[in-house]
Amino acid sequence: MKLVLLSGGSGKRLWPLSNDARSKQFLPLLEGEHGKESMVQRVWRQLGVLGLQDHTHIATSKSQEDIMKSQLGEGIPLIMEPERRDTFPAIALACVYLFDVLKISRDETICFLPVDPFVEDSFFHTLLKLEDVLGRTGADIGLVGVSPTYPSAKYGYIIPHAEVEESADLFQSVRRFVEKPSEQLAAHIIEQERGLWNCGIFAFRLQYLLDQLQVRYGTISFEDFVGNYSNMPRISFDYEVVEKADNVVVIKYSGYWKDIGTWNTLSEELLQPVIGIGAVSNDCSNTHIINELDIPVQVLGISDAVVAASPDGILVCDKEASSRLKDEIYRWDGRPMYEERVWGWRKTLDYRKSDSGEEVLTKRVRVQAGKNMSYHCHHQRKEIWTIISGQGEVIVDRQRRTIRYGDVIQIPPGQMHSVYAISDLEFIEVQIGELLSDSDVYREHLLWSEAEHGGAPCAE
Amino acid sequence: MKLVLLSGGSGKRLWPLSNDARSKQFLPLLEGEHGKESMVQRVWRQLGVLGLQDHTHIATSKSQEDIMKSQLGEGIPLIMEPERRDTFPAIALACVYLFDVLKISRDETICFLPVDPFVEDSFFHTLLKLEDVLGRTGADIGLVGVSPTYPSAKYGYIIPHAEVEESADLFQSVRRFVEKPSEQLAAHIIEQERGLWNCGIFAFRLQYLLDQLQVRYGTISFEDFVGNYSNMPRISFDYEVVEKADNVVVIKYSGYWKDIGTWNTLSEELLQPVIGIGAVSNDCSNTHIINELDIPVQVLGISDAVVAASPDGILVCDKEASSRLKDEIYRWDGRPMYEERVWGWRKTLDYRKSDSGEEVLTKRVRVQAGKNMSYHCHHQRKEIWTIISGQGEVIVDRQRRTIRYGDVIQIPPGQMHSVYAISDLEFIEVQIGELLSDSDVYREHLLWSEAEHGGAPCAE
Repeated sequence: MKLVLLSGGSGKRLWPLSNDARSKQFLPLLEGEHGKESMVQRVWRQLGVLGLQDHTHIATSKSQEDIMKSQLGEGIPLIMEPERRDTFPAIALACVYLFDVLKISRDETICFLPVDPFVEDSFFHTLLKLEDVLGRTGADIGLVGVSPTYPSAKYGYIIPHAEVEESADLFQSVRRFVEKPSEQLAAHIIEQERGLWNCGIFAFRLQYLLDQLQVRYGTISFEDFVGNYSNMPRISFDYEVVEKADNVVVIKYSGYWKDIGTWNTLSEELLQPVIGIGAVSNDCSNTHIINELDIPVQVLGISDAVVAASPDGILVCDKEASSRLKDEIYRWDGRPMYEERVWGWRKTLDYRKSDSGEEVLTKRVRVQAGKNMSYHCHHQRKEIWTIISGQGEVIVDRQRRTIRYGDVIQIPPGQMHSVYAISDLEFIEVQIGELLSDSDVYREHLLWSEAEHGGAPCAE
Repeated sequence: MKLVLLSGGSGKRLWPLSNDARSKQFLPLLEGEHGKESMVQRVWRQLGVLGLQDHTHIATSKSQEDIMKSQLGEGIPLIMEPERRDTFPAIALACVYLFDVLKISRDETICFLPVDPFVEDSFFHTLLKLEDVLGRTGADIGLVGVSPTYPSAKYGYIIPHAEVEESADLFQSVRRFVEKPSEQLAAHIIEQERGLWNCGIFAFRLQYLLDQLQVRYGTISFEDFVGNYSNMPRISFDYEVVEKADNVVVIKYSGYWKDIGTWNTLSEELLQPVIGIGAVSNDCSNTHIINELDIPVQVLGISDAVVAASPDGILVCDKEASSRLKDEIYRWDGRPMYEERVWGWRKTLDYRKSDSGEEVLTKRVRVQAGKNMSYHCHHQRKEIWTIISGQGEVIVDRQRRTIRYGDVIQIPPGQMHSVYAISDLEFIEVQIGELLSDSDVYREHLLWSEAEHGGAPCAE
C-alpha cells in the first residue's frame, strides 16, 4: 500500500498567518517534540514513527515546493501539480505519476489522505486496514469514518447501510453521503443512521482509477496529464468518483480526530494563550494571541477571542465567528509579506509608491548557512543590500567576493547576481524601480564554482 | 488676561498610538476643517478664531518641543520646563517666566488650562469672564465648573456654598472639592449640592502666586526656578494651592465639554468606524479601528471594542475596559517606533540584536521640503541611507553634495553629517553598531552655507 498526502489548502482560513505562499498546514504553531511544528511536520513525524515515510508521497503544487522542502527536507518525495485545481485532478495526476513514472503495479492499493489531519497514531493503523478490506470485499473504494462526538453542521457524513450490524473495528458498506447537514439533521443521522464524519481518506486499487482515466481521456501518460492539467475539471474526488461508485466501504475510527481549519479549532490545541509578544488581561477567558510581529499585542477585557497578527495583517476575531473568516476576509490586494523559500525566508518591512509611480520595497532577507539563491537578475529594479548578520559570498556578473556584517552591495538593473551563506546570513534589501513584480526574475544556470574569485563586482 | 495651556500628558492612556514621544494630545484623529487634526491643533485653531492666540503661551517640556512646533508652527510661544513634573511646578515656572522674562505686570490675570479640552467656543467665552469675577470679588482663584450630564465616578467635583442662589451665568463661591466619588455619591453631589465637574481651569492674579513662591523659595527668578526645577515637589496645583486657598470662586459652564482621555471617549468623537486600512464585519456594532500600520486590520464578530495599531504595538480593548489601559499596558521596553521631529519624522521598520550583541535598526525617515537635520555624528554606529524619494543635499565631513532617488550614502562612525531636503525627501536608514542609543548623538554648529560644494564626501 502506498500513501499519498494531498497538500492543497487555502491561504484564507487562518489569515493573516496563512497566505497564498504559506497555507495553514505550514504554520509552525503546534507543540512538537522539539519545539513548535506545523501540521505537515506533525503528520510527517507520525508517519516516520510508524515506519510509513518510505511508502508515502506528497502531492502538491509549485507554489508550495519551497516551503515543503524547507519544512520536511530537500529529499521529500513530491508529486508536482502544474497548478492548484481540486482533489479529482490532483488524485488523477498522482495515480498516473505512480503508474507511468514510478512504475507502481496496477494492483497496488493507494490511499489518499489530507496533509493535515490532527489525529492519534491509531488513525494510521485504521487506515492501513483498508488494503485488506478492499481485497476481501472487492469494493471499489474504501473510506475512513470518524465516530462523531457532537452533531456538527460543518462536516460531511458517511451513512452506512442500516441492515448490516457489525463491530466498530470492521467495515460497513456505504449507503449514501450527506454534506454539512443542519445540527438537527446531524443529530438524527448520528443517532438513527449511525452516520460517521467523512475525514477525506480514499483508498482504491490503482487499476480502478487508471481504467476510468483511460476511458475518459484516452491516455494514462503522465506527460499528457501534465500538459492537459489546466483543462481538467475543478471538481472534488468525492463528487466526481466516490459518489458515483457502486461499492464503497467505510472503516470506523473512534480515536481523536480534528479538522484544524479555523482559529477556533486551532486555538484549542495551543498550550499557551500567547504565542509571540503580548499579554491578555486577567479578566479575559479563553482568549488567544498568536503574534508573528515584533511589536506587542495587548488584549484588555475581551473573552473568547483570537488575535492573530502577521506581516500580512491583523485579525481580531470572536472564536465562534472564526468559521466565517474565509468569506469575510478583508479584500486587500497586498503582496504576501512573508515568504519561506528553499534557501531561507524574506519578510517585507515597508512598501511605498510615489505619485510618479516609483516603487520602493524594503525587506529583511535571511539565507540559511550552506544555502544559496539562484543566479538571477531583475530588469526593472535596482537592489541595495546591507549585510546585517553573518558571512557569505556574492556573485555579481560572474565575479565572486566574500561579504560580511556591515557590507553594502548595489545591484543595478540587468546585472546577474546570487548570494551564498557561509554562516546564517541576513541583509536588508531595498528594491527601487518602476515595477516591483515578483515575476521580474530572469534565471541563468551557473555553478558556484564557475564564478571568478576575488573580483570587486559591485560598487560598495 | 493671559492664557497658558498646560501640555503634560501621559503616553499610556491612548497606547499604542500615544507614546513618550507623542502624548495623546498630538494624535491627529479628530475631524478638523482641513482633514484630521490633533487635540492641540483643535484648541489652537479655536483660540485663533476667538483672537486669543496672541495672548496665549504653551507650557511644555523638552520632549514635546519638536512635535509642538511641527503641529503648530515654529513660532509657537513655548514655556519650556526642564523636565516633566506635575501641575504645581509647571504653573509656578510659567508664572515666574511671565513675570521675570516677559515682564508681565503682577496685576495681570493669568488663566491656566489643559491643552486638550474638547469644547465648544463658548467655553472660552466663559473662561474670559474669570478676570472680571476675580476683580469684583477679590477672590484668590477662579475656576470653571462644568454642568454634569451624568454621575461620573471618574471626575473631580467642585461643590459651591449651598446658601448662595444665583443664575447659571454668575459665579459661586466654592465650599469644597470631592475627587472621583462613587457613582452614588456623585448623584447625591449633583442633585443635592449642585456640584460641578472640575475641568482643570485655574485663574488668578500673577501677584497671588508670586507672593507665595517668594515666601517659599526666596526667589522669583526664572533662572533660579529652572536650576532648581528637579527639586520641586511632584504635586498637583489643586492639592498644593487651590485646596488651601481661602477664597475660591467658580463659574458654571453648561456647554459641551469632554475629557478625551480614553479610547472609549475618543472613539465617540470619530466620524468613521475605521481610520486606516481595515474592516469591521457587519454583525459588529460600536467597534472602531484606528490603524496606523500599512497592513489591514479585520475585526470579525466583536462589538463595543477598539482596535488600535501603530508601530509601537496593537491594542484590542473592550470600550468599557479602556479606562484601565494605563495600568494594564503591556510592559515592553521597546524604543518609540514613531517619532515626529521638527524636520519631519522617522519610523522604525525593524530591529535585530544578534547573539554577539551587534544591533541593527532599520528606519524610514522623512525630511520635509526646506528642512534640515542638525550637523551631527554618532560614535558607535555606521549608517547607510538609501534615498527612496525626493531631492536634497547631504553634508558629510563639511563636504556638500546633492542627492536624489536611488542614491546610497554610507556614513561611518564619527563622521559629521547632515541632510537638507529640497523637495520632500525620504530614505531607508540602516543603523549598524554595538550600541544603537538615541543618546549617541554629538552635534556641532555648522551653517548650511559654510559647507564646501561639490565634494564626494561619502562612499556611494
